[in-house]
Amino acid sequence: MAFTFQINDDVQFNHDEKLLAKAEQLTPRLIKNRIQPVSIVKLIDDASKLDGVGVETISSIDQLSSIKLGRDESVILDCGDHHVGFFNVQLEHNGSPQDSPLTLKIKFAEVPSELKQDSADYDGWLSKSWIQEELVHIDELPYKLYLPRRYAFRYIELKVVDTSPKWKVSFTDPEVVTVTSADGSKVNQGDFKDTELNQIYDASLKTLKDCMQSVFEDGPKRDRRLWLGDLRLQAKANYVTFNNADLVKRCLYLFGGMTTTDGRVAANVFTSPHNIPDDTFLFDYSLFFISTLFDYYQQTQDQEALDDLLPVAKAQMDVSIQSVDDQGAYHFDESYPVFIDWSNEFDKETAGQAVIIYTLKQLIKLLEITRVDTNVYQEKLAQMTTYATEQLFDSQLGLFISGPNKDVNIASQVWMVIAGVIDKRSAKNLMNNTIQKLFPVRGIATPYMYHHIVEALFIVDLKDDAINLMKEYWGKMIKLGADTFWEAFEPENVNYSPYGSSIISSYCHAWSCTPAYLINKYLK
Amino acid sequence: MAFTFQINDDVQFNHDEKLLAKAEQLTPRLIKNRIQPVSIVKLIDDASKLDGVGVETISSIDQLSSIKLGRDESVILDCGDHHVGFFNVQLEHNGSPQDSPLTLKIKFAEVPSELKQDSADYDGWLSKSWIQEELVHIDELPYKLYLPRRYAFRYIELKVVDTSPKWKVSFTDPEVVTVTSADGSKVNQGDFKDTELNQIYDASLKTLKDCMQSVFEDGPKRDRRLWLGDLRLQAKANYVTFNNADLVKRCLYLFGGMTTTDGRVAANVFTSPHNIPDDTFLFDYSLFFISTLFDYYQQTQDQEALDDLLPVAKAQMDVSIQSVDDQGAYHFDESYPVFIDWSNEFDKETAGQAVIIYTLKQLIKLLEITRVDTNVYQEKLAQMTTYATEQLFDSQLGLFISGPNKDVNIASQVWMVIAGVIDKRSAKNLMNNTIQKLFPVRGIATPYMYHHIVEALFIVDLKDDAINLMKEYWGKMIKLGADTFWEAFEPENVNYSPYGSSIISSYCHAWSCTPAYLINKYLK
Repeated sequence: MAFTFQINDDVQFNHDEKLLAKAEQLTPRLIKNRIQPVSIVKLIDDASKLDGVGVETISSIDQLSSIKLGRDESVILDCGDHHVGFFNVQLEHNGSPQDSPLTLKIKFAEVPSELKQDSADYDGWLSKSWIQEELVHIDELPYKLYLPRRYAFRYIELKVVDTSPKWKVSFTDPEVVTVTSADGSKVNQGDFKDTELNQIYDASLKTLKDCMQSVFEDGPKRDRRLWLGDLRLQAKANYVTFNNADLVKRCLYLFGGMTTTDGRVAANVFTSPHNIPDDTFLFDYSLFFISTLFDYYQQTQDQEALDDLLPVAKAQMDVSIQSVDDQGAYHFDESYPVFIDWSNEFDKETAGQAVIIYTLKQLIKLLEITRVDTNVYQEKLAQMTTYATEQLFDSQLGLFISGPNKDVNIASQVWMVIAGVIDKRSAKNLMNNTIQKLFPVRGIATPYMYHHIVEALFIVDLKDDAINLMKEYWGKMIKLGADTFWEAFEPENVNYSPYGSSIISSYCHAWSCTPAYLINKYLK
Repeated sequence: MAFTFQINDDVQFNHDEKLLAKAEQLTPRLIKNRIQPVSIVKLIDDASKLDGVGVETISSIDQLSSIKLGRDESVILDCGDHHVGFFNVQLEHNGSPQDSPLTLKIKFAEVPSELKQDSADYDGWLSKSWIQEELVHIDELPYKLYLPRRYAFRYIELKVVDTSPKWKVSFTDPEVVTVTSADGSKVNQGDFKDTELNQIYDASLKTLKDCMQSVFEDGPKRDRRLWLGDLRLQAKANYVTFNNADLVKRCLYLFGGMTTTDGRVAANVFTSPHNIPDDTFLFDYSLFFISTLFDYYQQTQDQEALDDLLPVAKAQMDVSIQSVDDQGAYHFDESYPVFIDWSNEFDKETAGQAVIIYTLKQLIKLLEITRVDTNVYQEKLAQMTTYATEQLFDSQLGLFISGPNKDVNIASQVWMVIAGVIDKRSAKNLMNNTIQKLFPVRGIATPYMYHHIVEALFIVDLKDDAINLMKEYWGKMIKLGADTFWEAFEPENVNYSPYGSSIISSYCHAWSCTPAYLINKYLK
């Protein structure tokens, strides 16, 4: 998640120090590993790769120390896989005495295409500060350069802005210290008798692992923070892989500990320099606090967490159903928008209706566990379900419609299936109709929405279609060179970047890790 | 000094650890002062200033914290005078939660013109690494930014490359920690009943002070190292002002402790990360080891230093007179060039002849003090003096000529006067002839050469001409906005930079500090 822009500077927040203290106690110890880049590469034109840019190995990493670089000369190190962490390297001086400082530009890139871009050319609205590029001056060599900031990358370009005409610099002992809170030692790689699925599975696992830091981050390159909608999917993938339930718990307490005075959780929160909720609110993301708590309880039966957090979950619903009228119809509100997908080219009201139904059912179950009266929610659920099936379903089309213009889109169908609004047989018909009338998927650039489409196909047992779509989407990223899955990808427009440049895009993004969940849940 | 380029990677050096240990013991404690920038300024067009760029105050520094900056916005702090030191500032966050790192470009400038330049446009041969510009990313605000490197500057530009559309940055408590080894507490400012001379004197004093660090540096912005030719002039100015004789002593031991296996001292040495002689050699600079030791002994009567260093001084002459033939004529050698001035548009052989005579006389006096036999040097001196007066003086012109093409230039006359080759009356005639036939000075861009012209005028009692030339040269820099004197300046071509851009020029350069010496010696 990332592509949303709100400023709500009049919103007041509560800080529940008891809940936040529990979140703090659950801060994971990060697992560090020291690795060496594996080779020295150069960029090549390769039409089969993202943006037409690939790499070719030019020598082993052992040759690095013999390469002496002066003004405008550079070398690209390939770490062999995507990593999140810190970089250090020893800088050596060669030639006449060092009669000037060294100026070095260091770029970190998740995909080769990024190294083709010039940061000076980027002028999009997203902060330039996310560009993973450092300019350092070293007054005296030799020098052990430890960059203090964390990066997400596979490739490291060391570019000499200048030495002097009298001396050159060389590099020895490049080292990456990787960090993650995911313990991969007990998690197997993909073994599904299908090379493509194995590759998809492994890249999903790596994506999730690299996003698991002191919270579930959305992207370790850019945004680096905890979004609720992303958390819900990461948690699902986490339970069937690394199974670090405490990290989910920590994140739930972070959201639960910082609600607005009217009870809403923010769409995302920051945890450093201290815990701060963002002033961005998304209708469905808030409701997914219920889902994430529901899934967490299913996984752990952690009664203490349920007792602590159920009031927060309930508050999300109480605020949300204010947008539902007496007929049981949800009305889209610009000031508290339902997200569903980045695209604003389709109507989201029906999908929003389904999200409320989906989370209402989960809330009711949680309330029942704690023996709280659920009548009001049961009534609302019935009303909304009736409205959905009677008013929002076009029986002639065999598809749900959405909004005042009766928009027919995939999101409406998919979310109605996930919400279990109709019985399984009708749901299968609905998805078959969807495939027939609305496929191939077009104009959807988020793995987030693709995830829900694939899951809906699995739910109605259209297993082959689900696998095919997974291969068409995540498999295509693999073919384009992905080590981890991307924040945004439109298979019909493979070089699409929502920000106009790969330099600012995130190529390891949490909400794209869900094949690890889908494959484990539906194909094992 | 700086503008010279040699690579002599086959030269072998001795390291006399006894001498270097004495240099080490004399390492000065740097005096630190904390100062605040005084105002916020903007650049303006001002034809009367260097490169046509001036500044205008837009507010007091107290207003700084109220200025909130986003992408591409900037503020320029004026420290009120030139300083050498370190910078720190507190960075504050304003607006929605900080959803991106801060990227800040920080430029330090000695003169306003530097701030007009884009470092990306500089493509001269001198290392780009000298450009005083940092690019920093701050992941979390608030943040106290301490830049670890030392800069030379009056102006500090804080330019926000980016925040994000949701927040801005502001700055509080900017602080400069100045460093120098010159104790200015007992040194008076100029008081010579002449505003222009006072200004020249004060700027000379400041120039010297800012170049006095752990050695006498040539320029605190660029090169930052100990050059022998510059040291000789700095030492002269130092004796009549800050009078830190130990710093001169330290520098003499550094040169003396690292000679080539054939006895030569390098034109410059580095002292960090450890003591290293440069592989650049200048004929006259080597000989000035004798002059600097001579002046130091005159000032201190330090017998121990004389005993330690006289062998090194003698060795310089022994190597140099190998370039003098049996007639007493010095022959220019490309591989060990005489410097005299940056310009290579005039012949330097006669000036070189004079430099040998000048330093021969000093060496003989030093040898006499230590009762060493001086016969061989006396003979050489007589021979060279005779050759100079009989073969190099054109009595028809009344001027010295130089080289195979009998070039007539100012440097030859000036150095013959300084060397005392002719009696005072003849010398006065010579300088009057020089003024008549070779003035106004043209094509000379170094304060180093101008210093020698002015001193020659003072020596022959052409005091008004000396003062006028000092005002035309150093006074003109003051009018153009100088707080300290520049590495290079051509009064007939005021915006000349030897490197093509002010961004790389040094505007506080040791060899331009000599009015402090000249005024004290000849006008008090």
